[in-house]
Amino acid sequence: MKPFYNDTIAALATPHGSGAIAIIRLSGENAIAIVEKVFFTKNLKPKSLNNKASHTAHFGLIIENEIIIDEVLVTIFKAPNTYTGQEIIEISCHGSMFIQQQILQVLFKHSARPAKAGEFTLRAFLNGKLDLSQAEAVADLIASNSAISHQVAMQQMRGGFSNKIKVLRENLINFASLIELELDFSEEDVEFANRNDLKKLINTILEIIQKLISSFELGNVIKNGIPVAIVGKPNAGKSTLLNVLLDDDRAIVSEIPGTTRDTIEDEIIIDGVMFRFIDTAGIRTTSDLIEQIGVNKAFEVIKKSAIIIYLFDTHELSRGDLETEINLIKNYIGNSQLVIVGNKIDFEDLESLKVEFKDIPNILFISAKEQNNIQALKDTLVSLFDKQTVNATDTIVTNSRHVNSLNKAQTALGKVNEGLSKNTQNDFLALDIRYALDALGEITGQVTNNDLLMNIFDRFCIGK
Amino acid sequence: MKPFYNDTIAALATPHGSGAIAIIRLSGENAIAIVEKVFFTKNLKPKSLNNKASHTAHFGLIIENEIIIDEVLVTIFKAPNTYTGQEIIEISCHGSMFIQQQILQVLFKHSARPAKAGEFTLRAFLNGKLDLSQAEAVADLIASNSAISHQVAMQQMRGGFSNKIKVLRENLINFASLIELELDFSEEDVEFANRNDLKKLINTILEIIQKLISSFELGNVIKNGIPVAIVGKPNAGKSTLLNVLLDDDRAIVSEIPGTTRDTIEDEIIIDGVMFRFIDTAGIRTTSDLIEQIGVNKAFEVIKKSAIIIYLFDTHELSRGDLETEINLIKNYIGNSQLVIVGNKIDFEDLESLKVEFKDIPNILFISAKEQNNIQALKDTLVSLFDKQTVNATDTIVTNSRHVNSLNKAQTALGKVNEGLSKNTQNDFLALDIRYALDALGEITGQVTNNDLLMNIFDRFCIGK
Repeated sequence: MKPFYNDTIAALATPHGSGAIAIIRLSGENAIAIVEKVFFTKNLKPKSLNNKASHTAHFGLIIENEIIIDEVLVTIFKAPNTYTGQEIIEISCHGSMFIQQQILQVLFKHSARPAKAGEFTLRAFLNGKLDLSQAEAVADLIASNSAISHQVAMQQMRGGFSNKIKVLRENLINFASLIELELDFSEEDVEFANRNDLKKLINTILEIIQKLISSFELGNVIKNGIPVAIVGKPNAGKSTLLNVLLDDDRAIVSEIPGTTRDTIEDEIIIDGVMFRFIDTAGIRTTSDLIEQIGVNKAFEVIKKSAIIIYLFDTHELSRGDLETEINLIKNYIGNSQLVIVGNKIDFEDLESLKVEFKDIPNILFISAKEQNNIQALKDTLVSLFDKQTVNATDTIVTNSRHVNSLNKAQTALGKVNEGLSKNTQNDFLALDIRYALDALGEITGQVTNNDLLMNIFDRFCIGK
Repeated sequence: MKPFYNDTIAALATPHGSGAIAIIRLSGENAIAIVEKVFFTKNLKPKSLNNKASHTAHFGLIIENEIIIDEVLVTIFKAPNTYTGQEIIEISCHGSMFIQQQILQVLFKHSARPAKAGEFTLRAFLNGKLDLSQAEAVADLIASNSAISHQVAMQQMRGGFSNKIKVLRENLINFASLIELELDFSEEDVEFANRNDLKKLINTILEIIQKLISSFELGNVIKNGIPVAIVGKPNAGKSTLLNVLLDDDRAIVSEIPGTTRDTIEDEIIIDGVMFRFIDTAGIRTTSDLIEQIGVNKAFEVIKKSAIIIYLFDTHELSRGDLETEINLIKNYIGNSQLVIVGNKIDFEDLESLKVEFKDIPNILFISAKEQNNIQALKDTLVSLFDKQTVNATDTIVTNSRHVNSLNKAQTALGKVNEGLSKNTQNDFLALDIRYALDALGEITGQVTNNDLLMNIFDRFCIGK
């Protein structure tokens, strides 16, 4: 444990703002001693905490300069069985922002230090309570806003991904040691490491690494939402449709009492999957789109979208028109999925519309304004993102830092493979295996440096 | 305890939004049983809570339908030594809004009910943990944003005001009983209650009530801020000054790490005292002010202000001009305090300004733009609100409901006094004393009704 990380830090742990209660958290060797200085019984007598058992809660007053700041509940967590591995105190106070500030100021006065972003979790990492990938998952978990992103972060926090990487590393370390041993005996030309076994192992590892790297495309979509563009001629009803989808989502969220949500205007979560609508303000008509493609924003939008909803007014486009439009679009959508949606239907016309457009695949009919058949469109969106993939893929990489390290490991192991075929000298082999080991070790934090740590934990919120 | 208030309620207790941790709180006879249904050990085994001691914290997982929702810390509080007097469970989870919602939904599924606003504190009141005035102080405490409003709310929550009222009531109850006893023996013309003692008591009580009612003016100012108007000719620098005062205030607040503040644009707290700046956009010049007085907004602004800052440009107004202006204003400010502030000073001119305007009382010189001497203005504002008054007045009424009840008690006791002088019949005396008792009892909740309770607790936040 580095001595620098023994001093006592304090921060508000609950969200900013005023509420029923707020939690102020301290961690460090003087956490209990500092709180004891300002903690009193109901009858204004100093109240000892040091003699209390770990994981117990105690009612009392925070008093400074004879002013009662608040009636609080103090919970003690004694090292080492705590989140950070250090003494932790949590002060549960009334949720007034004034009181939160006052208590923090009193703690700072008694030599607690304001915690930096992520510093509690950094200490947990430095004390071996979490590895680096698990620590990063804590931030992902707090940021998770859909069932699937939550599930992936939870799995990572509970060590799923770390364990996979650790197993790969351990297998490699064996061979690295044997090859380094051969270097010591290089005059004698012995071979401790079986070259065939090593080749086999490296190929297995490369296969797993490739799978993990490939999972990032999915991981990224899970974390940031599946990009969807709604395109179509002017007045096809694009904004109305988007608003209906967004409003619906908000309504679902606000059904749960006691919760509100910082709505990000263009994201919706359907059935646990997040969709992110890309601004298509730049695309006015498909004809414009075609004309300008390659130079303008429209091309970018389509390139960035995994799903494209082509919306048309059923009163305006005939089947022939629609087919022409679809054929034009298809030239530009690449691997994206195309959903054709006829808008502004009158219910009595639905059957005849179905007949008219029956040859067009993936078509459905809605009325955005009347909110008819919106559920069918949602179901289609969800079906295009096959949730089975998430369940079947046991480990999904969601962090670009991890992909970066995996890529480095892949390159290094590729060189080892090549070296083995060419009977390269042992010292080069050993070096590349070490590179791969370091790259994998960066993911879990077995290999790390201060800059990397600062970079990671700076992104956390204060208090975590 | 009413059976209706035994069911188990649950709500988010920490502020809305995302943070390091969030607290979900349950109260009711099944709180422990409900949480046990979804609480598991690290190794996914059900974890019992019922056998755990009160005021202890336990690490575990919340699992529903085989999905791990979160790693949490559950703290148990067993009846009756809890906030509500009932079993309480606090679940400390990761501060993701998604996780908060998921856990609440799971609890609701297992038959917890969403808590209404203030329902935890309502239960505390119904179970005799707090009286009504203390319960109201909890809401005031959470809303408190200055040292003084905090201090007054804290005193009220800790029972200062309640005890005062209770003592008054107890003394009155004695006499009420004696007079009611006389009614039972009315044929025999006995006198159990000494009329002189009763008169004396009522006069003492009336005096205290009058003091409490008078303290409301101060209490209101403490709670809502001291109203201040900045007036002066156009381009005197009114907006610049206001911005400097507001900015300064914000900077002080944001010095404290981990806290931000919902800034109310026109309130500032100086040295623990809140000042509320009243919009003076309607007042353009003092001459306009005089011309339009009686019909326009300006009159209202001055009437509402406890302090009026008259700001003038030291380059524009001579001493003679200023004296004319001040004399005009003085006709309209009533009991308000007037502060004269010369703006736009150059430092080298300060001494000559002081000489020129030396006969004008309460004058000071600043440069709002250069932020010179702003502290002196702040000190003046604070000195005009004599903080000693707050410390000397041991009980300050801040709640208009309480003033209303005090007024009712005052009227009723006035009638008793009158009746005693006129030798009114005992049954009328008894009735008026009862009225007074009821009015005082409303304050602490000894006399109450459902509408009143709903009205009070509806204003709380959910989760408190």
